[in-house]
Amino acid sequence: MTHVMHYDPSATDLVYTFGGHRPIAEINPGDVLVTSTEDCFGGAVRTVDDLPTRVCQAFNPVTGPFHVVGAEPGDTLALHFIDLTPARDWGMSATFPHFGALTSTHTTATLQPPLEERVWRYDIDRDAGIVRYHARRSESTVDLPLDPMLGTVGVAPAGGEARSTIVPDAHGGNLDTPELRAGTTVYFGVNVPGAMFAIGDGHARQGQGEVCGVAVETAMKVTVAVDLIKGVSTPWPRIETDQRLMAIGAARPLEDAYRISQHDLVTWTADLSGLELLDAYQLVSQAGSAAPGNVCDPNYTMHAAIEKAFLPGVVAYQGAHQRLRDLGRSLR
Amino acid sequence: MTHVMHYDPSATDLVYTFGGHRPIAEINPGDVLVTSTEDCFGGAVRTVDDLPTRVCQAFNPVTGPFHVVGAEPGDTLALHFIDLTPARDWGMSATFPHFGALTSTHTTATLQPPLEERVWRYDIDRDAGIVRYHARRSESTVDLPLDPMLGTVGVAPAGGEARSTIVPDAHGGNLDTPELRAGTTVYFGVNVPGAMFAIGDGHARQGQGEVCGVAVETAMKVTVAVDLIKGVSTPWPRIETDQRLMAIGAARPLEDAYRISQHDLVTWTADLSGLELLDAYQLVSQAGSAAPGNVCDPNYTMHAAIEKAFLPGVVAYQGAHQRLRDLGRSLR
Amino acid sequence: MTHVMHYDPSATDLVYTFGGHRPIAEINPGDVLVTSTEDCFGGAVRTVDDLPTRVCQAFNPVTGPFHVVGAEPGDTLALHFIDLTPARDWGMSATFPHFGALTSTHTTATLQPPLEERVWRYDIDRDAGIVRYHARRSESTVDLPLDPMLGTVGVAPAGGEARSTIVPDAHGGNLDTPELRAGTTVYFGVNVPGAMFAIGDGHARQGQGEVCGVAVETAMKVTVAVDLIKGVSTPWPRIETDQRLMAIGAARPLEDAYRISQHDLVTWTADLSGLELLDAYQLVSQAGSAAPGNVCDPNYTMHAAIEKAFLPGVVAYQGAHQRLRDLGRSLR
Amino acid sequence: MTHVMHYDPSATDLVYTFGGHRPIAEINPGDVLVTSTEDCFGGAVRTVDDLPTRVCQAFNPVTGPFHVVGAEPGDTLALHFIDLTPARDWGMSATFPHFGALTSTHTTATLQPPLEERVWRYDIDRDAGIVRYHARRSESTVDLPLDPMLGTVGVAPAGGEARSTIVPDAHGGNLDTPELRAGTTVYFGVNVPGAMFAIGDGHARQGQGEVCGVAVETAMKVTVAVDLIKGVSTPWPRIETDQRLMAIGAARPLEDAYRISQHDLVTWTADLSGLELLDAYQLVSQAGSAAPGNVCDPNYTMHAAIEKAFLPGVVAYQGAHQRLRDLGRSLR
Repeated sequence: MTHVMHYDPSATDLVYTFGGHRPIAEINPGDVLVTSTEDCFGGAVRTVDDLPTRVCQAFNPVTGPFHVVGAEPGDTLALHFIDLTPARDWGMSATFPHFGALTSTHTTATLQPPLEERVWRYDIDRDAGIVRYHARRSESTVDLPLDPMLGTVGVAPAGGEARSTIVPDAHGGNLDTPELRAGTTVYFGVNVPGAMFAIGDGHARQGQGEVCGVAVETAMKVTVAVDLIKGVSTPWPRIETDQRLMAIGAARPLEDAYRISQHDLVTWTADLSGLELLDAYQLVSQAGSAAPGNVCDPNYTMHAAIEKAFLPGVVAYQGAHQRLRDLGRSLR
Repeated sequence: MTHVMHYDPSATDLVYTFGGHRPIAEINPGDVLVTSTEDCFGGAVRTVDDLPTRVCQAFNPVTGPFHVVGAEPGDTLALHFIDLTPARDWGMSATFPHFGALTSTHTTATLQPPLEERVWRYDIDRDAGIVRYHARRSESTVDLPLDPMLGTVGVAPAGGEARSTIVPDAHGGNLDTPELRAGTTVYFGVNVPGAMFAIGDGHARQGQGEVCGVAVETAMKVTVAVDLIKGVSTPWPRIETDQRLMAIGAARPLEDAYRISQHDLVTWTADLSGLELLDAYQLVSQAGSAAPGNVCDPNYTMHAAIEKAFLPGVVAYQGAHQRLRDLGRSLR
Repeated sequence: MTHVMHYDPSATDLVYTFGGHRPIAEINPGDVLVTSTEDCFGGAVRTVDDLPTRVCQAFNPVTGPFHVVGAEPGDTLALHFIDLTPARDWGMSATFPHFGALTSTHTTATLQPPLEERVWRYDIDRDAGIVRYHARRSESTVDLPLDPMLGTVGVAPAGGEARSTIVPDAHGGNLDTPELRAGTTVYFGVNVPGAMFAIGDGHARQGQGEVCGVAVETAMKVTVAVDLIKGVSTPWPRIETDQRLMAIGAARPLEDAYRISQHDLVTWTADLSGLELLDAYQLVSQAGSAAPGNVCDPNYTMHAAIEKAFLPGVVAYQGAHQRLRDLGRSLR
Repeated sequence: MTHVMHYDPSATDLVYTFGGHRPIAEINPGDVLVTSTEDCFGGAVRTVDDLPTRVCQAFNPVTGPFHVVGAEPGDTLALHFIDLTPARDWGMSATFPHFGALTSTHTTATLQPPLEERVWRYDIDRDAGIVRYHARRSESTVDLPLDPMLGTVGVAPAGGEARSTIVPDAHGGNLDTPELRAGTTVYFGVNVPGAMFAIGDGHARQGQGEVCGVAVETAMKVTVAVDLIKGVSTPWPRIETDQRLMAIGAARPLEDAYRISQHDLVTWTADLSGLELLDAYQLVSQAGSAAPGNVCDPNYTMHAAIEKAFLPGVVAYQGAHQRLRDLGRSLR
C-alpha cells in the first residue's frame, strides 16, 4: 500500500535557495507527497496595480526541502508528478524593468531606460481548461489552453553550494520548462545525503522560452510520487513521459544549454540502446527535437528529446517512469 | 490561368552564394516554378565510403537565382512550396571533422583532435513515407517519418554583399529549419531589384538544431509558387502555415537568434492584431512556441511561432498564404 | 596606531564556498591582516606526476571568511593589498580534461576525447623576480616576470547563496584577473552583516584570460588592509590603483562580462566626474581599456579601465585607496 | 630602389565591400603605396548637428581594392604601415540608435527605445599629439593621446563572397583594433588571385572594445609597404610589431573570438618555436596578453599576443616584418 504524506506549508516555511536549509520532512522512496506551492510572487501580486518590485521582498519561494530516506550522492532521485492543479482561479504575469529576453538586464547591461513594469491578470477556468488573457491597453481577450506545470524543481547542489531558486543548473532549480507537466517523471542526480528536493513556481501555462521572463504564475496543488534509483548517477536533469525521453541543459550562452542537452541525450541514447556513440549522435541528429524552456533566467534552459518509439525495447532507470505512472493511476 | 515555368538545372548551373550572380531566368509574380535541387554534397556522396572532405570541392549548391519581375527593395517576396518530393530513394548524412554542435569548430576552436568523419546512407521510401536509418557500427535500423524540407532558401542580401550558401542571415539562406515544408509560405524582404531568389539543400528530414551539422541530404523536386507584396517590407524571414505565423532569427550567440525571432513575432503580432506592444509581448510570452532550426551553421537559427487561432481575424500579407495555398491545390 | 592581525590557517580551516560559513575571526575597519593562502590544489600538486584529478579532493580553498565589524548590506568593503609574496619557490600549472578555453568542457560539451591532463612545475625566484617555465616535451625554458596576484577574493553573496570558490560573480570570488596585485585596492558591495570576505588562489603570474584554465599556482603570504565605506553601495567588484579605475564584470557569454564592466565604468565615471551619462559613455569609448581576466571559469571576467589622469580632480570612495596606500607604505 | 605608388581616390572610387570589385590598381610585392582613406562617414559628418543616420547613405568606405601581382590562394599578404597621419585636424564620433555594446541592436533585439543619436567633434592636434574630447552636455574637455590606426584592412574573402566593410572575419575587414598602428605589419591569408586588399576607417584613437561603436573617426594619409610570402598560408589575421606577435579572432560570441585568437597564437607559437602543442598552450597561458578590438561589429574581435622576447630566436614569415620595417625607415 502506498503511503501518502500531506504537507501544507505556511508562508514562513517557504525557502529561496536550493541547499543551505534543514529538511522540513522526511519521505521514503515509493511514497506520495500531497502538498502545495505558492506562486513566484509569494502571492503578493493579486491585481494589475500590484507592481512586483514594490510589493515583493523576494521571489520564487519553494516548498521543501524534503529529505529522501536513503538517498546518497551517486544515486538518482525520480519525481513523478501525478497531479498539478492551480490552487486559484487567477494567475499573474508581468514585465520587469531588467528581466526578460527582450530587455536589457543586469548582465546584458545597456544604457537604455528599462521596459515599463506592467502586470497582467489571467482568469483560470479549471473546468473549461482555459487561461484567459486580458490586454491592458485594449479590451482584447484571448483564451489559451490551461497547461499546468512547475517552473522550479530540484535538489541541493553539489560542493556545499546554496543556489537561489531563480537559477537553474545541474541540480535542477528554475528550469522553467513547460515539459514539467502532470504525467511526467523528472530525474535528478543526488548531490547530498537525502537529496533535499524542493518544488515551486507553478505556471498555469508558459510559452517556450518564457520570453518576457514571467509565465502565468499561480499557486499549485501538487501530488508527486517519490522514488530513488540507487547507484545510478544522472549528470543533468532528465524527463521521461509516456512518449519521450528528454535531457535538459542549463547554461549561458544558449548554445551551451543546447550542447549540454544534446550531449546528454546522445550519450544517454547510446547507453540505453547499445548504439555506438557516433551512431547515436547521427540518430538523434535526424530524429531529435529541441526547444527552449527559459531564455531569461541566470542560466537559460533547453531540452533535447527523442521519441521512445524510435528506441524500441529501451527501458530507462529500471522502468521507474512506468512504475510511478501506474502508481499514480492507482491513486485516482 | 497560372503560368508554370519548368527549369532543369545542370550541375554547372548551380551557384554557391546568394548575391553575386546573374539571374538564370525571370519569373512573374503569380507564376509557379517547377525545378529541382541537388543535395548539399552536389550529389558526390553516394556511399558510406565517400567522405565529403575528399569527394566534394564545395558545399551546398543552390538552384537560381531567379529574377522576380517587378521586385524592388522594400517589397516582400512570398514563396509558397506546393510540393517537395525527394528525387532519389536514398539520402546521405555525415559527421564532419570541424562542423556540428558537439565538436570543436573553426570558431569554437579547441586543441582537441576533431571527431571522426563518418557517412551514413538512408533509404527513402516515398510511398511508405519512411526514411530508414542504418547504424554504422551495428546492424540497427530505425524507421523515421519522411518529412521533406528545403534547408536553403533566400534572396540576394543587401549592401552589395554575396554570402556563402552555408550562411543564414536576414536574407534567408541556409536557414536549415524543418518548418520549410510543402504547404508553407516563406516571406523575405527584397534587397535588390528582382529579389534574386535561390533554393537548395533538400532534406528528407532533420532534427531540430541539426545537431551533427548534416541532415538526411537529398536531391529534391520542387514546385513553388512565387508572389510579390509590393511596398511591404519584411525585416527577417517569416513563415506562414495554415495554423501558424512564424518569425526566424539568425545570429550568434543562440540567444540572439531567439531575441530576433521573438522580437519580430512580437512586433508583427502587434502590427497585425492592433495590440499595444507590451500587450503583444505578454501574449506571445504565454502563447508562443520556439525551436532551433540549426545550431551548427555560421549563424544559428531559431523560430518563434504563434497559432493563428489565438489571433482571430488576423490576415498577414494581404492573404498571400491562403491565395497561394488555393493556387497550389488547384494545380494538383 | 594601526592594529595588525596575524592569522595562520591550517589546512582544515580553509573553505570552498563564499557564504555558508561562520567567520574565523573579526577584523575592524582600518586594521591590517597578515595571513597566508594555499594554492588552488590545496598544496597537493608538487611534482609533474601529481595529476590534479587524482591527488585533489576539492579545488580552490580560501582563507576566511573574516567578519568586518560594522559592515552592513549597502556598504562597500575596501581591501588594499599591501604585499603579496609567494610562499614557496615553486608553482604548479596544469591542463585539465574538461577545463580551460581551448577544450570542450561540461557546458561547452562535445563528443571529442578531452585534452591530456598534464602538469608543469615552475621555479619561482623571488629575488630575481622571475618565474621559470619548463617545457615538458623538450628542454626549453623561458623566464617570465614574477607578478604575484590573488585569483580569488570576495565576500558572501546576496540572497542566502553560497557559491563555490571556483565561481566569480557580483560578490567577487574567482575573478582570476592579473590586476589584483599588491598596491591595488579592490571594492565589493556588502551583502551580509560582516561582509564575510575570504581570499585565496595565489598566482605567481597569469596570462590574460588564463587560457588553459590554470595559472602559475602558488601559496601566498598576504598583507591586506581592510576598510569600510559606510552607506555607499557597489554593484560589481571595482579596483583602484595609483593610475587607474577599473570595473569588473563576470558573466557568460564573454560579451556580457564586457557589457557589465563597461556599463559599470561608464556610470561610475559619470557619477564621479559629473559628466552626463552619454558624455561619459563617449569618453570611456575613446579613453578606456579592457581585457579578460579569465575565459575558463563558470563565469568569465573582463575589466574596463580608465586612467585617473583623464578624470582630473576625481576622488573615488572618499579617497580610500590613497589612505590605504599611505597606510601600507607606513608599515614597510 | 623601392617603387612608391601614389593613389589619390575620389569619393566615387571608394567601395563598401571586400570582394565583388575590380582592382583599381596593381601593385608589386616590395612596393610602397601612398594613399588616403575617408572616414567611416564618408566625410559627411562634420559638425555635432550632422546626425549620421540622416546625412550618410552608406558607412565605412575603403580605398581599393589593390591587386598584388603574383598573389595566389595559399600565399600570405604582408602589409606594413610605415605612416598613418590624420588628414584633418578634427575627428567625429557618435552614438547610434542600434549600434554599440551598451545598447540593444538589430540582433541583440529588445523592445526598449534606442539610445539617443548624438555626435561629438574632437580636435586633432598632430604636432602636440593630442585628441581633444568635448562633452556635449557640459563644458568639460579632456586631452587624450593621439594614436592613429586603421580600423578596416583586409583582402577579398574566400568562396566568392563579398562582405560589407562593416564586418570583420578571417579575411580581415573591420577589425577595429587599436593595434593596427604605424610600425606594425599585418598578415592575411590570400583567398583570390591578386589578394585584392583594401584599407580604410582611420581612427585618431579608440578605446579597447570601441564600446559606443564609433571611434574618433578621421580621414587618414597612409603609407604602406606591400609584400608577399609565397606558399605560406595564414588562417586568421596576424600582426607583428617590433616587440610582439599577435593573432586576431573575429566571431560571436566574444569567447569564440578569444578562442580563435588564442588557438591561432598557440599553434603559431608551436610552429615557430618547435614547442610541442600543449607546451606552447601552457607557455601562452602564462605569458600571453589579450584584449578586445571591437565588441560592437557584426563579428567581435580579440587579439592574443606574446612578447617576442619570450621566444628567443624565433623568426616569423621569413623576417618580413624586420625587412619592411627597415624599408620603411629608409624612406623617411
